[in-house]
Amino acid sequence: MLSFLDQPHTRVNLLTGEKILVSPHRSKRPWQGQVEDLPADNRPQYDPKCYLCPGNSRADGTQNPDYKESFVFVNDFSALLAESPDGAYNEGDLLRAETERGICKVISFTPRHDLTLPEMDLAAIKAVVDLWQYEFRELSNKEWIKYIQIFENKGAIMGCSNPHPHGQIWAQSSLPVEIEKEALQFSNYYKANAKSLLSAYVEIELVKQERIIIDNTHFVALVPFWASWPYETLVVSKRHVTNILDFTEEEKEDLGKTLQELTIRYDNIFQTSFPYSAGMHQAPVNSGDQQEWHWHMHFYPPLLRSASVKKFMVGYEMLANPQRDITPEFAADVLRKQSTTHYNKKK
Amino acid sequence: MLSFLDQPHTRVNLLTGEKILVSPHRSKRPWQGQVEDLPADNRPQYDPKCYLCPGNSRADGTQNPDYKESFVFVNDFSALLAESPDGAYNEGDLLRAETERGICKVISFTPRHDLTLPEMDLAAIKAVVDLWQYEFRELSNKEWIKYIQIFENKGAIMGCSNPHPHGQIWAQSSLPVEIEKEALQFSNYYKANAKSLLSAYVEIELVKQERIIIDNTHFVALVPFWASWPYETLVVSKRHVTNILDFTEEEKEDLGKTLQELTIRYDNIFQTSFPYSAGMHQAPVNSGDQQEWHWHMHFYPPLLRSASVKKFMVGYEMLANPQRDITPEFAADVLRKQSTTHYNKKK
Ligand SMILES: O=P(O)(O)O[C@H]1O[C@H](CO)[C@@H](O)[C@H](O)[C@H]1O
Ligand SMILES: O=P(O)(O)O[C@H]1O[C@H](CO)[C@@H](O)[C@H](O)[C@H]1O
Repeated sequence: MLSFLDQPHTRVNLLTGEKILVSPHRSKRPWQGQVEDLPADNRPQYDPKCYLCPGNSRADGTQNPDYKESFVFVNDFSALLAESPDGAYNEGDLLRAETERGICKVISFTPRHDLTLPEMDLAAIKAVVDLWQYEFRELSNKEWIKYIQIFENKGAIMGCSNPHPHGQIWAQSSLPVEIEKEALQFSNYYKANAKSLLSAYVEIELVKQERIIIDNTHFVALVPFWASWPYETLVVSKRHVTNILDFTEEEKEDLGKTLQELTIRYDNIFQTSFPYSAGMHQAPVNSGDQQEWHWHMHFYPPLLRSASVKKFMVGYEMLANPQRDITPEFAADVLRKQSTTHYNKKK
Repeated sequence: MLSFLDQPHTRVNLLTGEKILVSPHRSKRPWQGQVEDLPADNRPQYDPKCYLCPGNSRADGTQNPDYKESFVFVNDFSALLAESPDGAYNEGDLLRAETERGICKVISFTPRHDLTLPEMDLAAIKAVVDLWQYEFRELSNKEWIKYIQIFENKGAIMGCSNPHPHGQIWAQSSLPVEIEKEALQFSNYYKANAKSLLSAYVEIELVKQERIIIDNTHFVALVPFWASWPYETLVVSKRHVTNILDFTEEEKEDLGKTLQELTIRYDNIFQTSFPYSAGMHQAPVNSGDQQEWHWHMHFYPPLLRSASVKKFMVGYEMLANPQRDITPEFAADVLRKQSTTHYNKKK
């Protein structure tokens, strides 16, 4: 890398068009701030008080089935509702509001209360990928759904309120802000180059080999050049597909492998259950031709210095610009050096 | 308000052009997630180990003066450096980076280690406003500085690593992302209406009286129609000024009063030292005519349900769209009902 990249500099995020500030020298400062609690490492396989465990009842009294793989249901406290009355409000173009309709689902990844994605076997992870694909199809069959956000909050410090391994799907009637940004970037590049932005980007990264973590038959996992979270990564399908429906059985298997290896490497960095928010970005549905879109998945993990010290995206970051304290290349190096065997298995 | 606003809906943020999702019914869900530690309430007036207290030494060995009001110095661990070598990197328009230069300063608000802004007297707060104005002038005298971000992170849960009351100023050679967004919104409105966007907005809010918290001679504090943090507020000067240099003595006094009253109301909500990130947005400097800009200050406080349960802006919010669980009108009501005497004084 060029030497000026060891000094404070900005990088452009290709997917949003926005820049981030990199301050490589800054990780040297001592930390006297907040230290997080470590996640408990002794959960039972079954917890009678967990609303996600098989056979238990949920907030509304419904009883979970005695499921063996993964299990999906409508969130008992959905942020979006399918039946909201239509409405719009506009006062002088200054106060503007509009009804938003949607469906929020919860996916339990496994009946086992004590596991996490990196500790599940490949078959179980593949079952989750299958369910994501199935749910995406079901939701996109509703004409009024325009965008489907599949994601996971892992760890209490990421606002996850139940340690039972699970993810969420929020499907809604309009395009969220982050999707509008990416849509513009994908479409500008496609118009100019008749090629997927992420295909072009991954080609360069595969030549450089500076930020690649995983490179298998169908997927690449890398620390993007413009990562803003310390160990942020991006998973991209080598084939240019617009959404998860296009994945073959073989690709879904490879996606499972990629997620397993990536999350194991994460857990091994600080020998802790590595918290993150992760989720797929895919083409809007029921919105006409979207060929410029390229399926990908973001991992946004907050830890910076240790299992208990995270990066705070606060003051300057909220008011001005995202800022990071280690380079993406350093983070990629750390991730590459990790074993692909989970630290818990080695005990 | 219209009844559809009790249902999930989106609102447009006038200052960024982006929307937020409001899910008013959602605050009903029980919280089983992370609970924060309460801030300690028994700090000494002077702490021999604090690098901000008068007379103590800092990381680089410098000794603080025996200051009586407020005190400013260059951050010993600055994210931006004035002397970074120039550089630019562009690989196929896909990997793009550029040197960023800047100056990061720390402002100790008072010699008293045990206070916070809402506990300081008016004269001491006015001295901080004076210093902000002074520093803004000094920094803007450097031709290469284009933007000056004045801000404060308050509380350990906002990444603040020292409880001694202090703020920061980051001045830099280009415009941060959030400023570019606001610049576009201000300038579009000004071109179309020959009027400040925020003057027009405040006029409507003063008629409605649904979201106003404070309305004094020179300033208004309100919960913006598009607030995304639970108790987010916006402080706006009634006079259309582009930056802090334009404020008269009387206005600075009034700003001090506004900040004092607003932060006292915050502390009283949950009878705790209310954490937040707050900062001013002002016109870029050394960048030609910026008459469309209107000085304002954002408060982004994370607490949602109690002194120890915050709103997590995670999965859906990071990947898709900011989302809130109570309406801005509800938050304004709560803030309006608070006493303007600090709960600590009433003991
Ligand atoms: O400069 P401090 O107080 O050490 O650090 C704090 O504020 C900075 C500016 O908002 C952030 O970049 C840091 O993540 C945060 O911990
Ligand atoms: O839905 P949960 O897991 O209760 O809640 C969590 O994820 C949501 C979606 O990212 C966020 O809105 C909440 O703030 C967070 O606590």
